[in-house]
Amino acid sequence: MPNTAASMSPHTLRQAIRSGAHSGNTSGYSQGFVQCNVAILPADWAAEFLQFCQLNPKPCPLIAMSGQAGQTDMPDIAKDFDIRSDIPSYKIFRDGLLTEEVNDIHDYWRDDLVTFMLGCSFSFEEALIADGLEVRNITEQSNVPMYRSNIACKPAGRFSGDMVVSMRPFKAADAIRAVQICTRFPSVHGAPVHLGDPELIGIQDINHTDYGDPVTIKEHELPVFWACGVTPQVALEKAKPPFCITHSPGCMVVTDLPNSRLAIL
Amino acid sequence: MPNTAASMSPHTLRQAIRSGAHSGNTSGYSQGFVQCNVAILPADWAAEFLQFCQLNPKPCPLIAMSGQAGQTDMPDIAKDFDIRSDIPSYKIFRDGLLTEEVNDIHDYWRDDLVTFMLGCSFSFEEALIADGLEVRNITEQSNVPMYRSNIACKPAGRFSGDMVVSMRPFKAADAIRAVQICTRFPSVHGAPVHLGDPELIGIQDINHTDYGDPVTIKEHELPVFWACGVTPQVALEKAKPPFCITHSPGCMVVTDLPNSRLAIL
Repeated sequence: MPNTAASMSPHTLRQAIRSGAHSGNTSGYSQGFVQCNVAILPADWAAEFLQFCQLNPKPCPLIAMSGQAGQTDMPDIAKDFDIRSDIPSYKIFRDGLLTEEVNDIHDYWRDDLVTFMLGCSFSFEEALIADGLEVRNITEQSNVPMYRSNIACKPAGRFSGDMVVSMRPFKAADAIRAVQICTRFPSVHGAPVHLGDPELIGIQDINHTDYGDPVTIKEHELPVFWACGVTPQVALEKAKPPFCITHSPGCMVVTDLPNSRLAIL
Repeated sequence: MPNTAASMSPHTLRQAIRSGAHSGNTSGYSQGFVQCNVAILPADWAAEFLQFCQLNPKPCPLIAMSGQAGQTDMPDIAKDFDIRSDIPSYKIFRDGLLTEEVNDIHDYWRDDLVTFMLGCSFSFEEALIADGLEVRNITEQSNVPMYRSNIACKPAGRFSGDMVVSMRPFKAADAIRAVQICTRFPSVHGAPVHLGDPELIGIQDINHTDYGDPVTIKEHELPVFWACGVTPQVALEKAKPPFCITHSPGCMVVTDLPNSRLAIL
């Protein structure tokens, strides 16, 4: 990653993505600004997905959505934004199955598509690090470990499923501090949903992740679990809408919103 | 306890204590109002004790202190208050040793005495219960279990010692909620200082308390530890001032401050 990555403005980064000058992961770029998970659905599925987000705000914290079907910009959160070109990589799903992974969706766009942007853990990880906590997946330069839990989401129409959780290990006092910090940021998953014994939320083996990579859990550390933005992707795969687009993991929408604007206090 | 105990006004209760009509524990009385731990010290010890409180705000959260030595009222927190008569039971210490336990300290009062009032767990227990959490020591009608931890307080002059902690068991999700609730109340010990493995803070046997009584820890519950107001009493016993007065455990100053006034947000 170039040294300028962290300080690059979100607008400059989005232009570089649009032109193809930047591809791949957005992690570590434009630090201090909110990055979002994205789901794009046909209008006749959008109302149910919106309700699913409303009922499950910890895994599906809605930061923005299209004002009307077919809208390709998102002026409230990103200047000169085009949903069809400004994400480094997109996944195309048909009937719940991944069919293509592409760098531009102009050819796939339809006037009935509705875009949802959901909060992502990058924002709260930045707040934890700024407070002096060590975030293990960042130290170990790996993807955060994620697991399918047995915590059921509240169903909404055709959307349902268990919550996917991410895990970061901390000593108890730091886990308590992490609860305090993340409580300030409900729109990026908020406070942890569990800590301690993984089996109590249906995780049999903490070293066997369902997504991402395992991280080292040191002696005297507790695993701390957050609701994860992969949850809505799992709900989408299960609901099998005839057509759906998401971002590829780690290739997010980089918005102009400062992370600090998400703090409720 | 009479049914009217919970709804009795703090002023009425203090008058009943002064007249001798009420003796013993104040737990459960005048619900919704702040009750305080009390330490009374000669003026030449007061500055160091104040600094000890300032350096250790979690175990020693200062809510009020005398404006000048010899002052017997405390108008900011209690109307018509007299420190010499309005606590149900007092402990008199000489050179760090308990010598008498009395119901009135008029005969012991001196013009050089300074009163410190420190926050107490009753306030945050009320907030936890109001949020729907079960506080085990209240359910089991016992004194909260307390332990001498190996967490060192920051020393100030002649005052030093390890932190005493109180313990309440919760399931993980409720422990997370308890962190959130108690964070709002820094002046009554604030967020927990530890959760999970008791040995990590020097507690070898959770069923062997140093003060108070053990409580049931159910399957899948974590012990959650808060800084405890017994900490300054231990520091006082260790510092051995020639003269010192405290309240007797459970026999608190009942103030006119609503608990909600302690919330920082």
